[in-house]
Amino acid sequence: MTEKRLFTPGPLNTSRTVKEAMLRDVGSRDADFVALVRQIRARLLALAGVSQASGYEAILIQGSGTFGVESVISSVLPPPSKLLVLTNGAYGDRIAQIAVRHGIAHEFLRFPESEPLNAEALNTKLSSDPALTHVAAVHCETSTGILNPIESLSRVVQQHKRTFIVDAMSSFGAIPINLAQTAIDFLISSANKCIQGVPGFSFVLARRDKLELAKTCARTISLDLYEQWRGLEANGQFRFTPPTHALLAFAQALDELDREGGVAARGRRYTSNHNQLIAGLKKVGFVPFLDPSFQSIIITAVHYPAHPNFRFDDFYRRLSEHGMVIYPGKLTGAECFRLGNIGDLYREDIDALLHAIAAVLSEMDIHLPLPPPTGASPRA
Amino acid sequence: MTEKRLFTPGPLNTSRTVKEAMLRDVGSRDADFVALVRQIRARLLALAGVSQASGYEAILIQGSGTFGVESVISSVLPPPSKLLVLTNGAYGDRIAQIAVRHGIAHEFLRFPESEPLNAEALNTKLSSDPALTHVAAVHCETSTGILNPIESLSRVVQQHKRTFIVDAMSSFGAIPINLAQTAIDFLISSANKCIQGVPGFSFVLARRDKLELAKTCARTISLDLYEQWRGLEANGQFRFTPPTHALLAFAQALDELDREGGVAARGRRYTSNHNQLIAGLKKVGFVPFLDPSFQSIIITAVHYPAHPNFRFDDFYRRLSEHGMVIYPGKLTGAECFRLGNIGDLYREDIDALLHAIAAVLSEMDIHLPLPPPTGASPRA
Repeated sequence: MTEKRLFTPGPLNTSRTVKEAMLRDVGSRDADFVALVRQIRARLLALAGVSQASGYEAILIQGSGTFGVESVISSVLPPPSKLLVLTNGAYGDRIAQIAVRHGIAHEFLRFPESEPLNAEALNTKLSSDPALTHVAAVHCETSTGILNPIESLSRVVQQHKRTFIVDAMSSFGAIPINLAQTAIDFLISSANKCIQGVPGFSFVLARRDKLELAKTCARTISLDLYEQWRGLEANGQFRFTPPTHALLAFAQALDELDREGGVAARGRRYTSNHNQLIAGLKKVGFVPFLDPSFQSIIITAVHYPAHPNFRFDDFYRRLSEHGMVIYPGKLTGAECFRLGNIGDLYREDIDALLHAIAAVLSEMDIHLPLPPPTGASPRA
Repeated sequence: MTEKRLFTPGPLNTSRTVKEAMLRDVGSRDADFVALVRQIRARLLALAGVSQASGYEAILIQGSGTFGVESVISSVLPPPSKLLVLTNGAYGDRIAQIAVRHGIAHEFLRFPESEPLNAEALNTKLSSDPALTHVAAVHCETSTGILNPIESLSRVVQQHKRTFIVDAMSSFGAIPINLAQTAIDFLISSANKCIQGVPGFSFVLARRDKLELAKTCARTISLDLYEQWRGLEANGQFRFTPPTHALLAFAQALDELDREGGVAARGRRYTSNHNQLIAGLKKVGFVPFLDPSFQSIIITAVHYPAHPNFRFDDFYRRLSEHGMVIYPGKLTGAECFRLGNIGDLYREDIDALLHAIAAVLSEMDIHLPLPPPTGASPRA
C-alpha cells in the first residue's frame, strides 16, 4: 500500500514524527502514561482558553468523532429534556438520528445545505418552545464545508438559559474557539482532525457544572460521559483499554501544533492551502458549491463539471493512482465532490494536487476550461 | 517515556514490525484500505474455522473490547428477549451491567471467582426458564485468569435452542475456538489481545442468520452491530472514521501470527511463558489464586504474600522502575495482583521479570522464601 496525499476530512496526513511516536507500547495504568493523559486533557482545555480551575473538563472517549457526539447526546439529556437540533447537513442530521435512537425528545430547525444556521431563527424557536432544554449544532458542517456562526448562536442559547452542544469536529484546533468567551457547554472534537493526530479517539470539552448534571443519566456503558470523566479524575485512567498508541501520537501532535504557533498559525496555513486550492480549481473552471462568504478553510464541496466525459468514480480512481485521495460528496441537492485541505499539507501538496487534477482531466479527454456545472451559477 | 515489558492483559507488547506498519496514513475509502479491511475480516473468520460461505460474518467495531461487547448486547436482543449472564468475575458482571443500562431483561447464574462456569447448572437453569432467549459467558475471565468451558456450555445452549454470546477477549488467537464445531452465535474479541495488534478496535464473529435478526434492534448508533455489518458489506467501509493505523498494525499482526504457526503455535508459546512464570513464582513462595486445573495460559492472579513489608503499590512501582509493568488485582474475595504472559514476550522476558521480582523483594527487605499468603492454601 503506497502512501498518498489525503485531501479528505480525515483520516488525514500526519507528520512522520507523529506516527513515530507510536513506535512504543505503554501500559495504560503506567504512571508515565497516566501523566501523559492528564497533560493531554489540560492542553485541550488550554487550546479552548479554559482550564479545570475555570470550571471546565476534558474527557477522552475511544472511537471516532461520532462516538464522542453520541457520548454527549446519550449522556447529558436527563428526561424530560428536549433537544433542538440545528442542521444544514449530514452531520447535523446525525445528531438527530442519535436522539431518535435513544428516544430523546427533539425537534429540528433545518436550513438549506447552502446556508449557515441562523441565530434569529433560533431565537424565535427558543422563545416559542420553553420545553426545549438543549440546543445542538455543528460548527463546520463537513458535508458542505460551511462554517456555522457558533458565537451568535451561543449568545442566543445563553440568553434563553439553555444548554449548548457543539460538534466542532472539523474546526477545533484551526478555527479559534474560546470557551471563556463563547457559551458552549459541551464541545466535541476528534484526535484526527485539525490537531493532526491519528484516528482512535474523540474528546469532549465540558462545563463541569453541566457535566455534573449528567450523573446517572447515560444510556450506555461505553459512552457514559460522566463515568468516563469520573474514571479519568479518580486515577487518571480510562475505564476501558485506551488506544495508547493514538494517545502517544496525539501528545506529539499537540507539541507540533504549539511549535507551528498554535491554533492561529495552523488556521493561517489552512487558509493559505484553501485559497491556493480554490484559486487553482477556479482557474480551470471548477465551481465551488458554497458562497465564499460561508465557506470554511477546512473542506470544500465542488460541483461536478457538466462535461460528458466526467464521471466521479473515474476521476477519483485516476487521482488516487496519481497518489491524491479526494472525497466523494454528501449532499442531497447537488452533485459534488469534496476536497479537504487540512492535515500535514503545505503549498507543494496543493500544487501537486492541482497538477494531478489537470493531468487526470487530460487523461479523461476533458479539455480546459471546464463547462460550468448544470444548475449552478459560477461564484465570484 | 521508556519502553517497558508489559505483563498485563493489554495493552500488550507488540512487535517492532507491527508498530512500524503504522508509519503510514491511508484514506479510509481508498481501494487498498478497503481491500485490507476485507482481508482482515476474512482472516478473522478463518482463524475461527469458518467463512462467509459457511454462514459467518466478521464485524469490526471502533473502541476497546467493552465497546464490542456492548455492541453485541445492545444490538442482538430484540424485546422481549431475556439474557442469562453466566459470571464468575468482573467481566461477566460487566455484561450484566450493559444489559441493565439498556433495560434488557436478564438474570444471573453466578459462580465463585475460583470456580469455572458449570454446564449442568446452565442446563438446569435453561430447563426451568423458557423465557431466557440468550446466554452470555466470558471464555477467559481476565479478573482471575480462569478458563471457562465454552464447549460444554455451548452444547447446552444449543440443546435448548438459545443464542450463545461469548466474550473471548483474552483467549481468541491463542486458545483454539472452532465456530464450525462450537455453537457460538456471537464471539467478541479485541485487536490488542492474543493477535497482538495495537488497541483501537474490537471485532465480532457472528452467525449470519442470527445477525440478520438484529436488524432495527440496536439501541445506539455508534455500536449498531447490524448497521456496521451492512456498511462493511455495502462498500467495505466503516460507517464512521476507522482507526486506520490500528488496522494496518492488525494486518501485520495477522501475518506474524501465521508466521509463528497460527493459533496452536501461539498457544504453545503462551503456555511455555505461563509455565516458566508460575514455576519461578512458586520457587520463591508466591501462591497462585486458582487451582491449576482451572488456570488459563493467559493471565494469572497471584496472592499477596503475608509479609509485613509487602505493599502492592510499592512492589508495582519498583518493578516498573525495573522496566516491568504488572497488573493490579480485580477480585472481590482475595488480595491478589495479576501477571499476564501474552503479547510479544518470550523466555528471556519471563526470565527478566523473575529476576526483577527477586531484586525488588530484596529492595523491600523481604527475604525468601516468602511466607504463605493469609487464608490461602499453597497449590500443588
